[in-house]
Amino acid sequence: MEGRRVVGLAARDKSGVLSPYSYNLRKTGPEDVVLKVLYCGADHTDLHQMRNEIHNTNYPLVPGHEIVGEVLELGSEAKKFKVGDKVGVGCIIGSCGECSFCKSNMEQYCHKKILTINDTDIDGSPTRGGFSSAMVVHQKFVVRIPEKLAPEQAAPLLCGGVTAYSPLKQFNRSDKVISAGILGLGGVGHMGAKIAKAMGHNVTVISSSDKKREEALKHLGADAFLVSSNTAEMAEAANTLDYILDTVPAYHPLGPYLSLLKPDGRLIIVGAVPQPLQVDAVDLILGKKSISGSFIGSMEETQEILEFWAEKGLTTMIEIVKMDYVNEAFERMERNDVRYRFVLDVAGSVLES
Amino acid sequence: MEGRRVVGLAARDKSGVLSPYSYNLRKTGPEDVVLKVLYCGADHTDLHQMRNEIHNTNYPLVPGHEIVGEVLELGSEAKKFKVGDKVGVGCIIGSCGECSFCKSNMEQYCHKKILTINDTDIDGSPTRGGFSSAMVVHQKFVVRIPEKLAPEQAAPLLCGGVTAYSPLKQFNRSDKVISAGILGLGGVGHMGAKIAKAMGHNVTVISSSDKKREEALKHLGADAFLVSSNTAEMAEAANTLDYILDTVPAYHPLGPYLSLLKPDGRLIIVGAVPQPLQVDAVDLILGKKSISGSFIGSMEETQEILEFWAEKGLTTMIEIVKMDYVNEAFERMERNDVRYRFVLDVAGSVLES
Repeated sequence: MEGRRVVGLAARDKSGVLSPYSYNLRKTGPEDVVLKVLYCGADHTDLHQMRNEIHNTNYPLVPGHEIVGEVLELGSEAKKFKVGDKVGVGCIIGSCGECSFCKSNMEQYCHKKILTINDTDIDGSPTRGGFSSAMVVHQKFVVRIPEKLAPEQAAPLLCGGVTAYSPLKQFNRSDKVISAGILGLGGVGHMGAKIAKAMGHNVTVISSSDKKREEALKHLGADAFLVSSNTAEMAEAANTLDYILDTVPAYHPLGPYLSLLKPDGRLIIVGAVPQPLQVDAVDLILGKKSISGSFIGSMEETQEILEFWAEKGLTTMIEIVKMDYVNEAFERMERNDVRYRFVLDVAGSVLES
Repeated sequence: MEGRRVVGLAARDKSGVLSPYSYNLRKTGPEDVVLKVLYCGADHTDLHQMRNEIHNTNYPLVPGHEIVGEVLELGSEAKKFKVGDKVGVGCIIGSCGECSFCKSNMEQYCHKKILTINDTDIDGSPTRGGFSSAMVVHQKFVVRIPEKLAPEQAAPLLCGGVTAYSPLKQFNRSDKVISAGILGLGGVGHMGAKIAKAMGHNVTVISSSDKKREEALKHLGADAFLVSSNTAEMAEAANTLDYILDTVPAYHPLGPYLSLLKPDGRLIIVGAVPQPLQVDAVDLILGKKSISGSFIGSMEETQEILEFWAEKGLTTMIEIVKMDYVNEAFERMERNDVRYRFVLDVAGSVLES
């Protein structure tokens, strides 16, 4: 027996072009939440999957993993929410629940985690994301959208926001002023800058060109702006930062950024660069620097960033579009022609399959 | 006015061959300690410098930076020691005293630090190491050898030992059992294994071949031994270690070792690999792993490892040789034919220039 019939947008082949696609949700399990999708963010991971750039796409593919919705229906044991609640779903919708990662609130590292798109759900069906009228998700992987937060504002926090928040929360301390670097000013970077600033850090945005200087200083509240190709500026800033959140998903040499860090400083990589990174051992040794990686965040941290965002009164910089604009939106995203995230107005769009 | 006349061993050219060499120490300053050298360790850094492999050697070069001696004379303000005290000198003999590193007991990272060999001393003369009858060193860079510790035993701790101790001391905690990996079983590695074991860690020695299995398990007290080329053994040990102390000073892929770490696990590099290291961002991100570097240790930590070694009743595995054997000792070191450190019996050797 299958669940309700829904209509979404799917890519059918590596062209990545999205077109209407109708399918059935799985049957609602006892701990499941059925949600009507209101808004859904769009990011580069969606695009890579749509175009089979990671060579593992199963078509048709319904993208979308920054989903805000409203509870339509609940399984008999799904006590966490009630019908009508505003809720969110991020990058994962399942994990084993039994491994050391799952047992220590790090289920995003579970080797059996189920991704929200292009994975296999518990019933064997393909997982389909938020570019769709509705979804069914186990309540463990559903978070609550705080009342103070507009639903469309919450969407980018569910992947990009928590990706920045999870490694930065260790620096959320009041005993000293932390000097933060944010490398790359895209979806994750702009939220990282806002989070760091809201934590009281002294924030330097590092970019490959001067184009985003005003944006960083005026609109994001950064304290300083550094152009990575300006060697004099870079040399002057040597040994000044406690950490750098590196959001650049393309190959870049790490040495110049390591030089900006203080001893014990940390370069935190969240952009999955496909080529191997290169690093000089001497840069790490003589500077006592470290390079680490971080993958999205736990469900607990996803809830935390939503509360943090609401409490601090932060806003995401988004462009809201209807679903008939989605293919153009992805083309613009590819040209970096968006500040900084497209959010699809799913409930406000008319889709027919 | 110059200080006392001494005789040592110096390399004269890139052959690296050592032969007797006589020179004057600098004049004893108010805070200086003049020490008669008793024992001096020999390591790969000496060899690289002797052969100009780092392309910055000033000949004649007097090596030796793991020096144990006896105080012969003190400057008027050198109150830290008295004549006859057993003392030690390691890799550095000076720093600016004013930068943030110096002010936070991390003087080994000072950009103006003065290295014990192949550097320029405060009076403009070349620094000359412990392959010599005597040395003059500012008291800040002299440590006390604990009474319980035999002088020859202390020598390797002053560079190799503190190099392992400095990054490991953060794991010296009693609230949980730490799973440690020691990669490479040479001078630093064997001391790292002993330190980790003495801290109560569960120690796995990782080596490129099976040859050192018995050595590691029987003589170093390791709990497990892993051959890095054995993919089945490596796969079984995946995600089990809290840290790996990587002492291998030659190029090696990092991916297989990162896979052994738990989330938040740290690969700590202390071997200055000349080629760039390569690392996959995805290994760091999906595993929440980190790679960091560490450079010897502070003077405070150098004193600490000596006390730690004495208190825990540990022994270094050394081969004591006279100075007329030194060229053969370096040849054997190059072939890894030493378990695990040569220590020169400087005071017990006859040297004439």
